Amino acid sequence: MTSLHSSSRPCRLAEVARWDLEADVVIVGFGAAGASAAIEAREAGASVLLLEVASGSGGTSSMAGGDIYLGGNGGTPVQRANGFEDATEDLYRYMLMAGGPDADEERVRLYAENALAHYHWLEAQGVRYRKTYLPGKRQAPGTGDCLIWSGNEDAWPFNEAARPCPRGHLPEVVGEMGGRFLVTTLASRAEALGVEVHTDARVVALVADDARRVHGVVARIDGAERFARARRGVILCAGGFALDREMLMRCAPQVARLAADALSAGHDDGSGIRMGLSVGAAAIHMDELFTTLPIYPPESHVKGILVNEQGQRFVNEDAYPGRIAVHCLRQVGDRIFLLVDHAIFEQPTELSRIEVAAVGESWEEVERELGMPEGTLVHSVRIHNQHAAKGLDPLFHKGAKWLKPLDEPPFAALACHLGHAFYPYFTLGGLHVRPTGEVLTPDREVVPGLYAAGRTCCGLPRSAEFYSSGMSLADCTFFGRLAGRSAALAR
Amino acid sequence: MTSLHSSSRPCRLAEVARWDLEADVVIVGFGAAGASAAIEAREAGASVLLLEVASGSGGTSSMAGGDIYLGGNGGTPVQRANGFEDATEDLYRYMLMAGGPDADEERVRLYAENALAHYHWLEAQGVRYRKTYLPGKRQAPGTGDCLIWSGNEDAWPFNEAARPCPRGHLPEVVGEMGGRFLVTTLASRAEALGVEVHTDARVVALVADDARRVHGVVARIDGAERFARARRGVILCAGGFALDREMLMRCAPQVARLAADALSAGHDDGSGIRMGLSVGAAAIHMDELFTTLPIYPPESHVKGILVNEQGQRFVNEDAYPGRIAVHCLRQVGDRIFLLVDHAIFEQPTELSRIEVAAVGESWEEVERELGMPEGTLVHSVRIHNQHAAKGLDPLFHKGAKWLKPLDEPPFAALACHLGHAFYPYFTLGGLHVRPTGEVLTPDREVVPGLYAAGRTCCGLPRSAEFYSSGMSLADCTFFGRLAGRSAALAR
Repeated sequence: MTSLHSSSRPCRLAEVARWDLEADVVIVGFGAAGASAAIEAREAGASVLLLEVASGSGGTSSMAGGDIYLGGNGGTPVQRANGFEDATEDLYRYMLMAGGPDADEERVRLYAENALAHYHWLEAQGVRYRKTYLPGKRQAPGTGDCLIWSGNEDAWPFNEAARPCPRGHLPEVVGEMGGRFLVTTLASRAEALGVEVHTDARVVALVADDARRVHGVVARIDGAERFARARRGVILCAGGFALDREMLMRCAPQVARLAADALSAGHDDGSGIRMGLSVGAAAIHMDELFTTLPIYPPESHVKGILVNEQGQRFVNEDAYPGRIAVHCLRQVGDRIFLLVDHAIFEQPTELSRIEVAAVGESWEEVERELGMPEGTLVHSVRIHNQHAAKGLDPLFHKGAKWLKPLDEPPFAALACHLGHAFYPYFTLGGLHVRPTGEVLTPDREVVPGLYAAGRTCCGLPRSAEFYSSGMSLADCTFFGRLAGRSAALAR
Repeated sequence: MTSLHSSSRPCRLAEVARWDLEADVVIVGFGAAGASAAIEAREAGASVLLLEVASGSGGTSSMAGGDIYLGGNGGTPVQRANGFEDATEDLYRYMLMAGGPDADEERVRLYAENALAHYHWLEAQGVRYRKTYLPGKRQAPGTGDCLIWSGNEDAWPFNEAARPCPRGHLPEVVGEMGGRFLVTTLASRAEALGVEVHTDARVVALVADDARRVHGVVARIDGAERFARARRGVILCAGGFALDREMLMRCAPQVARLAADALSAGHDDGSGIRMGLSVGAAAIHMDELFTTLPIYPPESHVKGILVNEQGQRFVNEDAYPGRIAVHCLRQVGDRIFLLVDHAIFEQPTELSRIEVAAVGESWEEVERELGMPEGTLVHSVRIHNQHAAKGLDPLFHKGAKWLKPLDEPPFAALACHLGHAFYPYFTLGGLHVRPTGEVLTPDREVVPGLYAAGRTCCGLPRSAEFYSSGMSLADCTFFGRLAGRSAALAR
């Protein structure tokens, strides 16, 4: 019988000869979730040891735009300063829908009721928010402005479920990624509170007793294995599995239709999830791969229409680009086209790898150039134009303000093909946890001594189709905090 | 620390006071996989204990039509008797595609090369095959005839990957389900070989040592817990999780769009999969829910066209109905219509719950009656008719023999709506195993002493979109045998 431990095989407690390191709470990963957990655990009086595989804090959170999904409770100061009242029930209903068909009601409720307090907590940690609002369709613009429409709030069918309100809150930072600023701020705060941080420390296995209570971790530090004892709990905040090709193919093989644009700071290798599984935890929604097709900027392209290689429309183009990308993946064939006319055309960003596939003085000409059967693409444009002229989209319910007949030549089809255009992705599936971060078995028993937060668990966002920007960081920070507090107060 | 065991928590070997039962190989479940495993294990000289939760053999296999996907090696006797040569490479290429984007090449190769031998093995067990062939589009017809086209062999894009050949082999039985006959035959054979069978025996947990080697199971028999020792291995053949609503919602929430038509003999509660997880196994493709929309019989309806609630076509209607159902689930909206004209209309089967939604003397009238925007459905029919008249389907590549203009009034739209029509389902995801049935951890280490077969594991079929009828029973019987042999010869 081998005694070798790995991410899939815990080190038996009986085999730990000595503890090299020791703390009340041991946190694996120093991204937004780990930093938030560390702050709360310290503030609850626990000693905290934080192990990070990279050479500094950040994790994949640092590659995000940095907007956090906040609101409710009458509105955050930023929402109110810009004339938006935001009822808790609207935030709740929206996030429940955004969580997908298996949204965790308890988690969403807790978040909705505490999102305003979470805003104030973020400010108290040093995350600055300017009281400004940017209308329209935006990705994180990098101007230091705050409030944006970051999801499907004003798009069908979400706008029928909850009163639309902008809720993406970007931190006040210019010239760097908001996510980087967010994590750095939280990480500095954690260090100031006396969290013991080891970087270049790769956690290779959990330590568990024969009843599967988790007692600590084994980490590789300075070329040697060190045993770190967690008196109260281990919190896994080690990210998702966007870089583990095999795990992706086994759980989310749709990734094979995308170019290799994993959104990751380099360590989303699934080891956090595997460590949870190794002590009997359940993993859920492992097929949910978030991906997005940034058809804007330019914002004017939202007025274009998307068609599949049969020349048919398939989604309201004013939906959040993540929702659009999921619908692209549902089409027969990998060729996806964004149709635009002279009035709305602007050069797509280089990043998007969206390229002109065909141009023509008529839609008939574009259709021919794309090799589509006569009358197919032309029909889609005709039906669209006819209703758009009246401000209507009876097929996909696109909002009136984005409806415009595509009738000003020249016309163009822009290629947004799967496998070629930029569809960055990360994973939403992970360990099944309570809102407290306590990790659950398939029978919903708690795994004693183990917690998870961020993309190592399956949290607020659990459906790529319904996701909104800012949900994952909301989940990382808010439920990271809860996990930190729960672990610190365990026993 | 509780010592209570469950499907998610193995009983510790140290806590087993005595073994009530003992055998070389313990098999959980007496469906096609369990029976096949039992036969081989006995023939390899092992003593075999088989525990079945129901009062007799059968499992969900007994609810199947009973066709097994067989061919290659120049053709089975039935294929050859009907003029079909079937090259091993064609069977291999077809099944590789049918396995989906993460098909297990090693498993498919092994199956393709041994499918003819497997046919002879089935006959040797007493499964009779008549040397007859039924052309056309069929579900298991119950006539005792054998060879049918059971999948996508002749449909795009499969017909571009491998030379089409019919490969569904139905056993010679009239007036009962072929699957019932198949399992009964295999089960009788197992009993004749001296397998010790306990029915009404619910396996509640594995028994494992602290290094996670599996040593047996705990079963509830006659109201008491019994400990059954497996000297060489436990084989989990306990079915899938189509009846565990919570597991479904956590892994395959698309089930929420279907009516409650789980295809199950009553015990697909996921416990087999959870027991594997409880000793560190990996589960893969847990989102893959097989479902099907039986648009035929009547076969003539294959000549109809399917449209979504936007009035658009979305799939080649000559595809296997399972593939059609997956594409139905990808549409925006739950309303799906099968459009037929007077020439092809026949009353759908009662079982299908496909009902007439609208009729008209023109397609314009049908479109109006369905409340679709003017020109949408009519356009789809027009494009279809125009190309069908020439034997072409440039959009979805439906085969020429199923193409016919829908131009003979009256016309009808038949409702095949999600949530209403009959979309029976079962699960394809399960434990990750080698072709030998050895169960693997997420790091692809073998869990010593544990094997799985049938829908407790993820086998040949691992994609609802690409599935063919007969693949699951092929997997259950062939890889059930391999698991039985592997366990019998272990150590």
